[in-house]
Amino acid sequence: MTTDDANTSLKRLPERTIERLSEYRRMLLECLKQGRTHIYSHELASMHGITAVQVRRDLMLIGFSSDTKKGYDVEVLIEFIGTILDSPDGLNVGIIGMGNLAQAVTHYFNGKRSKLRITAAFDIDPQKVGHTVAGVPCFHMESFAEEALKHDLRVVILTSPSSVAPEMVEPITQAGIRGVLNFTSTPLNFPEDVYVEDYDIITLLEKVAYFSK
Amino acid sequence: MTTDDANTSLKRLPERTIERLSEYRRMLLECLKQGRTHIYSHELASMHGITAVQVRRDLMLIGFSSDTKKGYDVEVLIEFIGTILDSPDGLNVGIIGMGNLAQAVTHYFNGKRSKLRITAAFDIDPQKVGHTVAGVPCFHMESFAEEALKHDLRVVILTSPSSVAPEMVEPITQAGIRGVLNFTSTPLNFPEDVYVEDYDIITLLEKVAYFSK
Repeated sequence: MTTDDANTSLKRLPERTIERLSEYRRMLLECLKQGRTHIYSHELASMHGITAVQVRRDLMLIGFSSDTKKGYDVEVLIEFIGTILDSPDGLNVGIIGMGNLAQAVTHYFNGKRSKLRITAAFDIDPQKVGHTVAGVPCFHMESFAEEALKHDLRVVILTSPSSVAPEMVEPITQAGIRGVLNFTSTPLNFPEDVYVEDYDIITLLEKVAYFSK
Repeated sequence: MTTDDANTSLKRLPERTIERLSEYRRMLLECLKQGRTHIYSHELASMHGITAVQVRRDLMLIGFSSDTKKGYDVEVLIEFIGTILDSPDGLNVGIIGMGNLAQAVTHYFNGKRSKLRITAAFDIDPQKVGHTVAGVPCFHMESFAEEALKHDLRVVILTSPSSVAPEMVEPITQAGIRGVLNFTSTPLNFPEDVYVEDYDIITLLEKVAYFSK
């Protein structure tokens, strides 16, 4: 199997598996901090409220197997998950609309160790443009294409007001951005090759409220 | 069919349907603002990047049918979705851990018109406890049980530091809270009758990054 083949087949990993891999890694980093070197699938499972079978299936899918009786080697597994999830040189993220929520998100996010970094912000407010906001330089939305190229942005977090969110689709697409985390409450029509994850807190809270009735 | 039967069968609506109903309503409210009185299923569908068949199936599931050629009556449908999603008298939400992200979320959320309201915050920081933060009174976490009862809290948003998140499971459960929106990056072990939605931005961004590669 060539590297290309491997990438192609990994590309098909299910969304839920990717989510769980990210969560496993976070738990594993926590274990490492506590000085643990090995962990069993049933321990990882119980931390996530899933079954050990599910954990083993996920790790089999990415081609990871453990051959010790002590369980998975924590460091090795962290490294292995990294080869699936991370870009080797890290990946730069832009954030559009630098309101309070975006600032809090940027602080929160850049405070964690991650291969993803929020490196550029965009707004139209003269109070913000040209300044450093939440630790990142803020540019005018008009120069999005130029700065996206300069900062090598691959992914954006969209937190502009919902009313103007549809106007952001064209500049984002034209700049070659391939992934969008949409914090606005407006569903947006991106071309098919742009991966969009809608992240609307009101929908989620309405869902929690419904199922807790 | 008695009301109880109706509730029982509605209780079984799939999670994705509930999410979409919440999104339909938001779009419909937007249409109403723009003065539209009717909308076709294919229009609602195209706003969400799904098929008209899916929209009609969702609305059939909740027992809504349109008998006009003009499409769905926007106001009637908004009202109808409300009978599914909302508690008649609204529902009070507490927020635990009143850091920057929580404050931004509270401002954002309480700024929208919704039957859900964030009405009480909890923290241990003396700078916050006893004060109004982001427009809501902030109490000491020690008095959670008492205040949860007084404020009739049904759902909480958990944004405490991840390291102390597991300690919140007991007070939340004992206070009879039945729904948790978990913003921390720690998966938590709640009893089965507590509905938990994990909402971790790092996982989502890692997922977007993966699928945009």
